[in-house]
Amino acid sequence: MTDGPARVLEALRDARGGPTSGATLSAELGVSRNQIWKHVEALRKRGYEIPGEPGGGYQLEAAPDRLYPEEVQAGLATRWLARDLRYFDATDSTNRVAQDLARAGAGHGCTVIAEEQTAGRGRLGRRFFSPPHTNLYTSIVLRPALTTAEAPTLIPAAAVAVADAVAETVGDSDAVEIKWPNDVLLGGRKTSGILVDLTAEASRVGFAVVGIGVNLNVDPEVFPEEFRALATSLRAFTGQPIDRAAFARRLYGILEQVLDEHARGGFDALRARFAARFRMPGRRVRVLEIDGSALSGTVRGLADDGTLEIEREDGEVVRVVAGDVTLEKTLKEVEGT
Amino acid sequence: MTDGPARVLEALRDARGGPTSGATLSAELGVSRNQIWKHVEALRKRGYEIPGEPGGGYQLEAAPDRLYPEEVQAGLATRWLARDLRYFDATDSTNRVAQDLARAGAGHGCTVIAEEQTAGRGRLGRRFFSPPHTNLYTSIVLRPALTTAEAPTLIPAAAVAVADAVAETVGDSDAVEIKWPNDVLLGGRKTSGILVDLTAEASRVGFAVVGIGVNLNVDPEVFPEEFRALATSLRAFTGQPIDRAAFARRLYGILEQVLDEHARGGFDALRARFAARFRMPGRRVRVLEIDGSALSGTVRGLADDGTLEIEREDGEVVRVVAGDVTLEKTLKEVEGT
Repeated sequence: MTDGPARVLEALRDARGGPTSGATLSAELGVSRNQIWKHVEALRKRGYEIPGEPGGGYQLEAAPDRLYPEEVQAGLATRWLARDLRYFDATDSTNRVAQDLARAGAGHGCTVIAEEQTAGRGRLGRRFFSPPHTNLYTSIVLRPALTTAEAPTLIPAAAVAVADAVAETVGDSDAVEIKWPNDVLLGGRKTSGILVDLTAEASRVGFAVVGIGVNLNVDPEVFPEEFRALATSLRAFTGQPIDRAAFARRLYGILEQVLDEHARGGFDALRARFAARFRMPGRRVRVLEIDGSALSGTVRGLADDGTLEIEREDGEVVRVVAGDVTLEKTLKEVEGT
Repeated sequence: MTDGPARVLEALRDARGGPTSGATLSAELGVSRNQIWKHVEALRKRGYEIPGEPGGGYQLEAAPDRLYPEEVQAGLATRWLARDLRYFDATDSTNRVAQDLARAGAGHGCTVIAEEQTAGRGRLGRRFFSPPHTNLYTSIVLRPALTTAEAPTLIPAAAVAVADAVAETVGDSDAVEIKWPNDVLLGGRKTSGILVDLTAEASRVGFAVVGIGVNLNVDPEVFPEEFRALATSLRAFTGQPIDRAAFARRLYGILEQVLDEHARGGFDALRARFAARFRMPGRRVRVLEIDGSALSGTVRGLADDGTLEIEREDGEVVRVVAGDVTLEKTLKEVEGT
């Protein structure tokens, strides 16, 4: 959106639903009343409900359910994250777009939002189901001072932020947990995915792109069959529609703070917050590693480098770098089903 | 080069300098004698010296000093490396080109050669001086099954291959050593640089590009002032011109074998070969780290993850991930100057 309509929108927001005359807007913005009318028309085309007519007063009755920068950034409490915000109605993959922007020089904190991803990617090249206008699909360019060995801990760091944002939004902290390596579960079902793409010169990270998808208002019934039983959305969990722009603002605020801590103290600085939502230790799991090998054992915890420590039945502790983890049901859960 | 001229060139090479009649070529290749003439003309335009005329015999008297695929691949003993070879008379950076090719789907082993780099990059974003038609500037796309933590060991692996290729070419193995993290020295002077760019999805490498520059025939007098005293070329060292295409073939052959070993056994599999050319252990060094901090101490060796282990004067052993290392002169060297 160009600057003129954005300034009119800001002025109407400041009036908090009350009417503002074209004359006042014209004086405030230093442009003609005809120009104000054109800006209001531009806002209406974007879905803003603004009753009024040329010469009369205008008031903002409703904003569209869109993650426009002017929506997300209104009241955004970040210093560097999502200050440079690129909005797409649809794109193939926000991580792909953000990587292209980073290669073209986009700075630390440059953020991409898309209403829909036509080729949303999950971990290990898998599909991330991304229907339009219901969820949040966002990718953030980072230029961290990290070695390539440290960079994978950006995933649990981002998971801490997503989990906290989900917990605050649903108002039920106990319902939110982190499943290694990159899922945030709500009531035991997947509500979010995190994907980190890196470029590096040998041992030094050039830039990283943290991609986050959160199921906010999607009806799980529209999920592809294979995800349906495992996935949920914040709306499905709470029964209430979620203000997507407000969620994005909350997430960006928490994420900036988490990433600043990560930059200062590494993943160690976030370990306690992570541990509070990491309920896998002590659970029995089966792991299918990316090389095709499988193992079973009991989760010990997360190692410093972000790998999962598992104690096998023979007592040996192994570290899993990447793979699919299935939690074996506890007796209580089995009885409960 | 298109297929026709390449096939004529191959036939003329098979004749080992002897004349081949246009009629024979026409029969062998199954095209008209007029077409043969056109292919010969195309070869002449690329700098091949081929006396002869339409209707008469042709012979290959000299190949141009160019790293054309038809030159480098003639007699190349690799299975996957440089089989897909992209030649550029000049480009900004072969690593940049190879990364673009990889993103567009280029496979494991796809190789870029440029006669000149107008923006050749070294480590940490530095310039790599790349004058035309005298050296080798090449970048190889790899799709290795490596974690991001393991990937930095591609640098010492590549250094082993470059050092061996240089040693075989100059016929003086003792003169060649590896200086951490990415230099191959000949007679104590830098003759090669290695740059590894990575992309990764968190802990899993997507593709790596190994860039290698080797000073073959360049006269060190043309180096920028700041490099002159520290750099050399194979020609400056031996006093003999170096066959650049033959060097590239030798390097690719050794590199393929080294990378295959690295893929099977990790850097451990190459440790002995590396150690034989790594003369830093026991030497006193000063290190300027990329965060600007400095330290002095004695090199202990290379850690499993590719970092340099240094024992400080207070006895503490620290690992350096990336930085500039200056070897302090030994008493003998100081006396010798």
